[in-house]
Amino acid sequence: MKIPQIFLVESHHRAGSLAKVLAAIAEAGLVLQDLESIRRQQDKTIWELTLEVDPAEEQAVIEKIDALPNARVLGKSDRVFKRHQGGKIRMVSRRSILSMRMLRDIYTPGVAQVCLAIQKDPSLARSYTSLSSTVAIITNGTAILGLGAIGAVPGLPVMEGKAALFAELAGLSGVPILLNETDSQKIVEIICAIAPSFGAIQLEDIAAPTCFEVEEALMARLGIPVMHDDQHGTATVVLAAILNACRLTNRELSRSVVGQIGLGAAGLGLARLLQATGTGRLLGTDLRPDALERLCAVGGEPASLEEIMAQSDIVVALSGVPGLIKPQLVRQGQIILALSNPEAEISPRLALEQGAAYASDGRSVNNILAFPGLFKGALEAGASRFTDAMYTRAARCLVQLTPQGELVPDPLDRAVHHAVAVAVYEEVCGHPYQPTPGTNTDTEV
Amino acid sequence: MKIPQIFLVESHHRAGSLAKVLAAIAEAGLVLQDLESIRRQQDKTIWELTLEVDPAEEQAVIEKIDALPNARVLGKSDRVFKRHQGGKIRMVSRRSILSMRMLRDIYTPGVAQVCLAIQKDPSLARSYTSLSSTVAIITNGTAILGLGAIGAVPGLPVMEGKAALFAELAGLSGVPILLNETDSQKIVEIICAIAPSFGAIQLEDIAAPTCFEVEEALMARLGIPVMHDDQHGTATVVLAAILNACRLTNRELSRSVVGQIGLGAAGLGLARLLQATGTGRLLGTDLRPDALERLCAVGGEPASLEEIMAQSDIVVALSGVPGLIKPQLVRQGQIILALSNPEAEISPRLALEQGAAYASDGRSVNNILAFPGLFKGALEAGASRFTDAMYTRAARCLVQLTPQGELVPDPLDRAVHHAVAVAVYEEVCGHPYQPTPGTNTDTEV
Repeated sequence: MKIPQIFLVESHHRAGSLAKVLAAIAEAGLVLQDLESIRRQQDKTIWELTLEVDPAEEQAVIEKIDALPNARVLGKSDRVFKRHQGGKIRMVSRRSILSMRMLRDIYTPGVAQVCLAIQKDPSLARSYTSLSSTVAIITNGTAILGLGAIGAVPGLPVMEGKAALFAELAGLSGVPILLNETDSQKIVEIICAIAPSFGAIQLEDIAAPTCFEVEEALMARLGIPVMHDDQHGTATVVLAAILNACRLTNRELSRSVVGQIGLGAAGLGLARLLQATGTGRLLGTDLRPDALERLCAVGGEPASLEEIMAQSDIVVALSGVPGLIKPQLVRQGQIILALSNPEAEISPRLALEQGAAYASDGRSVNNILAFPGLFKGALEAGASRFTDAMYTRAARCLVQLTPQGELVPDPLDRAVHHAVAVAVYEEVCGHPYQPTPGTNTDTEV
Repeated sequence: MKIPQIFLVESHHRAGSLAKVLAAIAEAGLVLQDLESIRRQQDKTIWELTLEVDPAEEQAVIEKIDALPNARVLGKSDRVFKRHQGGKIRMVSRRSILSMRMLRDIYTPGVAQVCLAIQKDPSLARSYTSLSSTVAIITNGTAILGLGAIGAVPGLPVMEGKAALFAELAGLSGVPILLNETDSQKIVEIICAIAPSFGAIQLEDIAAPTCFEVEEALMARLGIPVMHDDQHGTATVVLAAILNACRLTNRELSRSVVGQIGLGAAGLGLARLLQATGTGRLLGTDLRPDALERLCAVGGEPASLEEIMAQSDIVVALSGVPGLIKPQLVRQGQIILALSNPEAEISPRLALEQGAAYASDGRSVNNILAFPGLFKGALEAGASRFTDAMYTRAARCLVQLTPQGELVPDPLDRAVHHAVAVAVYEEVCGHPYQPTPGTNTDTEV
């Protein structure tokens, strides 16, 4: 398992010192993820080099660099850990509580009036509580990133990351909820019991098929938006990438054969969304029989990897298996999106060499492009559920915002998330966006 | 049911205009809670007058004021509602996410390293997540303030108020959790299922006897601090008030007979704490037989109201019944703490007139003096539970911090909450306070 590591490397001020370091890394077969100079001394510079490397291979790289005449590895940077110290999120009061008058207004005795008003008219909770800006981020720790079933608490840094992104990109309050439970029915019961606490629910990093069962049951039982992000968030962004690739190659999705390699949560979410959007034919392959059943349920056709490569105009791989697509299978004029991270099913360079019309890996296809705006729009619109139409609308919005020649927009561009929220809101409400008065403002009154 | 209302009253600039308004309010039998001038016009001033008034009596007061020659009621202020608009709390990211490098460190791919480190050594969750600064604030809405079983969502403004106070006074993240469930066993199961998400649990506004059953079961099953605030938070502050009243009257608690009138959650919490602190004798009365059983279980003696008044050196009333203590029952030299809000069991003035050595109502006895520091200290110390020794230590700390002649310290003085946290930490650890490095800092790294 490759994980990103930041190495601190000192290089002498000689022409070619750093070039030799990079060459040594390349020789070890590793791709440089990031490079930054962090300190310049009299005749040396200290660099932070980020590599995705298997801990077992680490020593070999260090030895290669240390063997160079003008460079040596000083150690590893703990910047990532430092940035996690004390956690990544915190709850704050929207108003400073410095006077007894403020205390009496926001707490006892004043708060009693607000409680009674909500008791009388429950819809007022939308205006006078944080309910409609609060999203539970729920995991049971069974499919944390690509790391697998590492447990709910070890998965908490991912949930906090999501919450931090909700806050930064959409002004929403994400609340991590960790469950040590694998039984679908029990998970559903627990979530239903705490659901009154939240305006919406994001399911996160829950292994298949539990993720499908839980999402389906919650959507049937709860009247608030529920979304399994690994399915629909990722699918929304991948759909945007597919639509952009079509635009770049003058292809129409509705007349294309799409082949999906890998039908996990994201793959199946995409299959459903492709069918909702309108696709010529949809082929799919996966090792798991239940995944193929789910593909059939949305109208897709099981096929072998070779059949998919031979028949598809657009190939989307979400298999998690590096190098799965052999170059010789690539057909002239195909669009190839090999999206597994950190290593793709086929490198874009190889696919293009084999005649692909367009090829990309998953580095730019970031699922954070979708979920903040999807939840923001759904909550502001008062939606009772997420629909394929909302996901499709969000994907089309992302397409419109993608700079010329790119596959997706910049995920840190706040305007993108606002636009997605507006698009989702308008899809739900059927009228132009009107922000809820007073919601999510921090005016001191 | 009296609730606080803010009336907007316009008075002419004539000598005695406001005096007459206040006299009219007094005639209606209402106590003025707060008064503020909010606008001065050419020959008029607009005032905000806060009164605790039953909605049924409201019209009578308005008519009395409107009948005055130089004043009229303009309407009611919605300042309290304005201060609730959009809710009172929100989750924020501790760090700005403006660069791809920051994104890659706090989210994928960097976060994977932190997840794996926690998987290997679960104790690292304390350092690299928000777990040890996060407190669930859990209610089932069955005893919201003095309003009763108004429901969990109508109780949310109280929970958000608590969370806002946790943030402002102790730098902790409070997360409201609302349960529509009254069965003790089911409540326990739900809370145990979500407990991995939190560093500690505050139970709030849950009716007796469920509150006792749930707290007891959670303390037995969970290895994190659990506290029912209405019992122990309130009891801690009341114990501090009793100790201060003793100090002011040169009395020793250990040689005094204490009589408790009203054995709800707060009363029973206090009974236990008084016994743990050391009291001469403890008498108590309540209408509910199960409350008397619980009193006996901690070594107290059931007695009638009259017996209590006749035998006690210190009387503490937490009954919720205005005027319950008839003045003629007060004995010479007694300490009388009649703490029910908004109206006491006996007014301090009447009790003093009858010869009480000291008397106070509950206006200054605010339970927010205890819970922020109790949780902060317990979490920083890594305590696995709250103990009576921690509550007693917190109470003694409050006593030390109380200004000469006062009953308790200023609840908005941040130094008070820090001192309580330090006292609780030292009680748990047995050594001087050492803040956890890196925790609760917001340094941009």
